Amino acid sequence: MENLNIYNPVKIHFGGGLIGEAGKIAKKYSDTALIVTGKNSMQKSGTLGKLVKILKDAGVAPIIFDGITPNPTINEIDSAAGIAKEKKAGLIIGLGGGSPLDSAKAVAVAAKGNIPVWSYLKTPAEEALPVITIVSTSGTGSEVNRYSVMTNPETGEKPGFGYECMYPKEAIIDPEIMLSMPPYVTAATGFDVFVHAFEAFTGKAKNAFSSAYCMQVFYLLKDNLVKAYDEPDNIEARGNMALASALAGLAIDISGVGIIHAMEHPVSGNYPNVAHGAGLAALTIESMKYNLESCKRDFMLIAHHFGIKRAGKSEDEYAAALIEKIQGILAALNLNIGLKDLGVEKSKLAKIAGEAFTTMGFAVQNNPAEAGEKEVLKLLEASY
Amino acid sequence: MENLNIYNPVKIHFGGGLIGEAGKIAKKYSDTALIVTGKNSMQKSGTLGKLVKILKDAGVAPIIFDGITPNPTINEIDSAAGIAKEKKAGLIIGLGGGSPLDSAKAVAVAAKGNIPVWSYLKTPAEEALPVITIVSTSGTGSEVNRYSVMTNPETGEKPGFGYECMYPKEAIIDPEIMLSMPPYVTAATGFDVFVHAFEAFTGKAKNAFSSAYCMQVFYLLKDNLVKAYDEPDNIEARGNMALASALAGLAIDISGVGIIHAMEHPVSGNYPNVAHGAGLAALTIESMKYNLESCKRDFMLIAHHFGIKRAGKSEDEYAAALIEKIQGILAALNLNIGLKDLGVEKSKLAKIAGEAFTTMGFAVQNNPAEAGEKEVLKLLEASY
Repeated sequence: MENLNIYNPVKIHFGGGLIGEAGKIAKKYSDTALIVTGKNSMQKSGTLGKLVKILKDAGVAPIIFDGITPNPTINEIDSAAGIAKEKKAGLIIGLGGGSPLDSAKAVAVAAKGNIPVWSYLKTPAEEALPVITIVSTSGTGSEVNRYSVMTNPETGEKPGFGYECMYPKEAIIDPEIMLSMPPYVTAATGFDVFVHAFEAFTGKAKNAFSSAYCMQVFYLLKDNLVKAYDEPDNIEARGNMALASALAGLAIDISGVGIIHAMEHPVSGNYPNVAHGAGLAALTIESMKYNLESCKRDFMLIAHHFGIKRAGKSEDEYAAALIEKIQGILAALNLNIGLKDLGVEKSKLAKIAGEAFTTMGFAVQNNPAEAGEKEVLKLLEASY
Repeated sequence: MENLNIYNPVKIHFGGGLIGEAGKIAKKYSDTALIVTGKNSMQKSGTLGKLVKILKDAGVAPIIFDGITPNPTINEIDSAAGIAKEKKAGLIIGLGGGSPLDSAKAVAVAAKGNIPVWSYLKTPAEEALPVITIVSTSGTGSEVNRYSVMTNPETGEKPGFGYECMYPKEAIIDPEIMLSMPPYVTAATGFDVFVHAFEAFTGKAKNAFSSAYCMQVFYLLKDNLVKAYDEPDNIEARGNMALASALAGLAIDISGVGIIHAMEHPVSGNYPNVAHGAGLAALTIESMKYNLESCKRDFMLIAHHFGIKRAGKSEDEYAAALIEKIQGILAALNLNIGLKDLGVEKSKLAKIAGEAFTTMGFAVQNNPAEAGEKEVLKLLEASY
């Protein structure tokens, strides 16, 4: 019986059109809010303009920082934090997918301190500006947890970090915003939800709380992951994927991720054009094969939640059937890819293997099967 | 797609011996703590004495209010609140089962205001003293949610209430404390866990979050409810029941309870010697029969989580098999009882039926099948 500590103070608001509440919610925290977002999608879909109006109508002055790239760098975060300080923003609003949401939390920490954000990997942060997340993808999970991932462009390192003060105060999950997600983003972020739940459910730090979330995630993914991709206007499927994203985000907040995330971070850290979910897609099947023997029962349970029939299958066959199922899902999402397809150079694999340990060591530790640098390199080669 | 609001800021600490951390945790909030507990079990088991020493060692002065009865009255709560004010306690520690924990939250509210606690049924509370819960049973669920139930001894009314400021700051769930639970308490509080999860899972306000908790609860109950009763020293079973209690407490915090709780509150409100879980036991089977048609699919899912085999059963038979299973569990717990066995007078049933609506109307509303006062009276008669 292991000791557990469970805590997640985020106020989650889920519902169509709930972005309309953003002004009222923001006003509770400050009269001046820094919106942290990217350069494209929130402008194109009109969501940024809408949010600006909603904030102004509620008496909250918005400042826009739209310099967040798909794999946000520490320079971007430090710049945004500088603006937050200069303009005396009392609230950070993350708007978009995982990158702006992660960045919003890092900006909130850096804006309270006097050191570069990279230093917080070693210096625990005690306080941060309040953060509201408004998520546009399903899903990063970042909308409901304390984690932030940032890239050091000089080294390609892409570590994750998270302190208690970094929990968003409130998360607005509005599936109507997600209707504008392009198919590739729907696929890649949707697959990220699976990997979150898979790694939290099979990891060494799994427990009754995170497993509860994960089992619900698997149920939701079974009927909605491919459907949200095939039917982008299906608001029900979008809503269920948004819920799955949040639940998986809560699960990793408790039980962390594993080797797939440990390998993916240095992949997209070194290749900033690679979408996180696409990197995961390339790495998942070989990692599942590697882990199968260490957590066969978990595989069987997940297979069950994905609706795979047991009839006539041995335990080995049933567990293995999950891998086939996931291969089928990847194919249906047009994500049946290798690292090569993502532009990763074979010569970089050794560097990536090393960085899985230096920047994501806790995730390797949490993986059900033991893995050293040699095994990780082999997995990267097999996933090429 | 309905709107959801999910929020639970309680820091949950689970683990054997964790009561040892109570001093360190309490010290974060105040130098003076009012311990709210009952007259017997925490003294007999030595837990109260242990807690007093732990607090003193950490520099927290303990004040003991041990006047909480099994169905706590508003007089008890107002007295404790008066002591908290007089002694300037900055923290309320609830120690024991559902009654002292519920009371601790009500005391925390009343100690901040200037009106009797009964007035808070109509006057929303905006602030409360911080509360730490140390739970001795599995389970009330009260350790992790905002709810408090109190009895008006003049009228027999026993309403529940709960505001955001009433969430415990931290919950210490130490299964070693639970080893001292007498068999009847293990049975009654353990069955309460089932009813919490059953009513949250089948109620109209069910959603993906509460259902995730409930499904995990059913899994845990399947292997541990009767085992914790049969093997009181089995710390693994105690631990799993403690987890189930907390998960079910989170579920009702989100999705509320139903008609079984709505009827039970006036039962034990009018008969303060009736243990809440025993009252629930008397009312559950007839209520399940009443609700079956309204949520047959939920019954089937619960049956599945309880490990009931589907093979050869029609949907109706499979759903009904759950009721048989619960009857079997009640028998194994020696709780196969009717209201008559609990000393309830038949002449009081009409009053009880009325109070189910006046004090627990929100729970009747949440019930899957519609029920008016006439139907509730019939259910009470059938459960006699």
